[in-house]
Amino acid sequence: MHADADRETGRLEAFSDGVFAIAITLLVLELRVPSGHGSLWRSLTHEWPQFAAYLTSFLIIGIMWVNHHSMFREIVRTDRPLLFLNLFLLLWTALLPYPTELIADYLRAGGTDAHTAAAVYSLNLTLAAVAFSALWTRAVRRNLLGTPLPPDAQWRSIGRFSVGTLIYAATIGLSFLSAPVTLAVQFVIALYYAFEQVIGR
Amino acid sequence: MHADADRETGRLEAFSDGVFAIAITLLVLELRVPSGHGSLWRSLTHEWPQFAAYLTSFLIIGIMWVNHHSMFREIVRTDRPLLFLNLFLLLWTALLPYPTELIADYLRAGGTDAHTAAAVYSLNLTLAAVAFSALWTRAVRRNLLGTPLPPDAQWRSIGRFSVGTLIYAATIGLSFLSAPVTLAVQFVIALYYAFEQVIGR
Amino acid sequence: MHADADRETGRLEAFSDGVFAIAITLLVLELRVPSGHGSLWRSLTHEWPQFAAYLTSFLIIGIMWVNHHSMFREIVRTDRPLLFLNLFLLLWTALLPYPTELIADYLRAGGTDAHTAAAVYSLNLTLAAVAFSALWTRAVRRNLLGTPLPPDAQWRSIGRFSVGTLIYAATIGLSFLSAPVTLAVQFVIALYYAFEQVIGR
Amino acid sequence: MHADADRETGRLEAFSDGVFAIAITLLVLELRVPSGHGSLWRSLTHEWPQFAAYLTSFLIIGIMWVNHHSMFREIVRTDRPLLFLNLFLLLWTALLPYPTELIADYLRAGGTDAHTAAAVYSLNLTLAAVAFSALWTRAVRRNLLGTPLPPDAQWRSIGRFSVGTLIYAATIGLSFLSAPVTLAVQFVIALYYAFEQVIGR
Repeated sequence: MHADADRETGRLEAFSDGVFAIAITLLVLELRVPSGHGSLWRSLTHEWPQFAAYLTSFLIIGIMWVNHHSMFREIVRTDRPLLFLNLFLLLWTALLPYPTELIADYLRAGGTDAHTAAAVYSLNLTLAAVAFSALWTRAVRRNLLGTPLPPDAQWRSIGRFSVGTLIYAATIGLSFLSAPVTLAVQFVIALYYAFEQVIGR
Repeated sequence: MHADADRETGRLEAFSDGVFAIAITLLVLELRVPSGHGSLWRSLTHEWPQFAAYLTSFLIIGIMWVNHHSMFREIVRTDRPLLFLNLFLLLWTALLPYPTELIADYLRAGGTDAHTAAAVYSLNLTLAAVAFSALWTRAVRRNLLGTPLPPDAQWRSIGRFSVGTLIYAATIGLSFLSAPVTLAVQFVIALYYAFEQVIGR
Repeated sequence: MHADADRETGRLEAFSDGVFAIAITLLVLELRVPSGHGSLWRSLTHEWPQFAAYLTSFLIIGIMWVNHHSMFREIVRTDRPLLFLNLFLLLWTALLPYPTELIADYLRAGGTDAHTAAAVYSLNLTLAAVAFSALWTRAVRRNLLGTPLPPDAQWRSIGRFSVGTLIYAATIGLSFLSAPVTLAVQFVIALYYAFEQVIGR
Repeated sequence: MHADADRETGRLEAFSDGVFAIAITLLVLELRVPSGHGSLWRSLTHEWPQFAAYLTSFLIIGIMWVNHHSMFREIVRTDRPLLFLNLFLLLWTALLPYPTELIADYLRAGGTDAHTAAAVYSLNLTLAAVAFSALWTRAVRRNLLGTPLPPDAQWRSIGRFSVGTLIYAATIGLSFLSAPVTLAVQFVIALYYAFEQVIGR
């Protein structure tokens, strides 16, 4: 039965790993080589927003992968809705290079355009958090885990995901105050998730 | 023997998952960041066709993956023709980002060019449906399944694929009436396949 | 021991599958959407060389994957030279999108430039054939197969690879006569390999 | 327990293989097809730096993969810090196509810009070496290996990684003397690692 369970989630994990790995690696294609007016060193430092956005998105996708990994150490069965909730999560993961390029291009512009770019970036992350939350809630409530969580641990972990989602939603608001601060906050949130287990077992 | 079967279809599934995962993630590279004339928000909303095309193709490739996944839970043996029918399916999957960009670019143009772009998009999907149908027919008829389907279930599932192919073929005709309606119909067909099992077991 | 063998070649196969899957899917990025002067339909038919080159390279990489797959059903042990011969093969696989773009761009130019593009394309394929041949020779001679081949089958299969390499080398010469004929011949050779097993067991 | 260990490092290896395979294959996207002024052959030979940079980076990522592979034949357990050290390694792997394009574009420029490009390239490789070193040190010291190394072999292998890191750090200095020599030295270092086992068991 364990082998069956492995087979059942195996291809989902392989496909998801593929999307995570490709999205994280495609980020590099958004980085532009300076076209050679003035000193290269100055051009590179002048283009710090693209490196900051690259690093933040790399960290975020990396942590999403780690947490997906932790989640699917618990989940051993899938059903069709779970497959589609996972696809919904992969949608926001695969799309992330686009708002990353948007924020890299508009961060220094200031004004409304920088705010719009930061809000789109934050919206993308919020929807990814919603997807994670929905995925975990379904797995927990529909008994798709290898070892069922005790009820209080169920609610604790679902609650933790909901708080995460609310924090991401709050960064959409923050975007209209300052785009660079929003990017910095996203980096810090990702660092927090790097050290904190999302699943309370 | 089961381990052998796993090994036999294992690399085919891994390779296919790779192509599905890469094609679905490469779609993001077709999205263009507005070049900064006028408000970013207005530019983004003005470019809704590229987001509509992205979302539709993402859903389609995702569902193709889910159905490929379902199919290879049944298929446990491969032969050389099956490998090439699978390659034929992957050809139309890997190519999809191209008509996606085509329809994104020409959707608003109206007239003949929008129709051409929608027809190319629909043709690509029709050929993918033909490939799926051929793959399944061979597997069913050549006894490559783990548990043979009873004859009536065989014909029911082959029939279901053929209907799918005919519907896709009909969208080629629809393309010459309206490109936006064609894209919307493709999205709805994909949603239908998301909820409906293609293999009647 | 069989599990160890699986583990030994397992990551090599996974990595190779990854490169094959990515290279075959990246080909689509070389296809250019016409920029909208004149009718889209005419532009698309006018750009047939890029579709011909895409299809040929897709078929070639697909068949290389199938043959790599067949080869590693026989090979169950690896050593460091085999890893590097495999890397040498992957080099020419991963590079193929570049000469594909080259031949797509220069096929119609005619004259020396079309010949150069076709020769570079053929050279790339020749080096891939050399790599395949070297990989198989090492595996056969160093006893890395699960079931050793009888001596005559060894020489027969090594001979078959050598003939393949010579044929590819001949296409380099052919390139200087006609670029379109060279591309057509590459397509035919790939079709031949699709139907013909390279490993004579 | 062995199966558990496999499962534990399995997805880390799959994800890492994905990133290695994608990064090595994406390198081809940095190669530019000459735009057709003058003879194609002359243009291609004139653009040797992009082919030299491609080949060097391909070899480097390939060897990083081989060594990662060797390392995870020893490592059978993971912990959260190891996951993040691995992510830190993948960051520099996934980023490599960017400095590769940088050095390809600026190699012939000479003067400060070529030196800057070479230094950025060398810095990237140095940080990858630091990541490898940290990963191995943690695995060895925290008992994450299948068979613990005897203390002297531990120090020998950690020492070997440190020497590698120092050599890469030295190439940052070398970059300010000559960019082409730096690229050649990187190629030679990669070749050395191709023949030399990094883990002294």
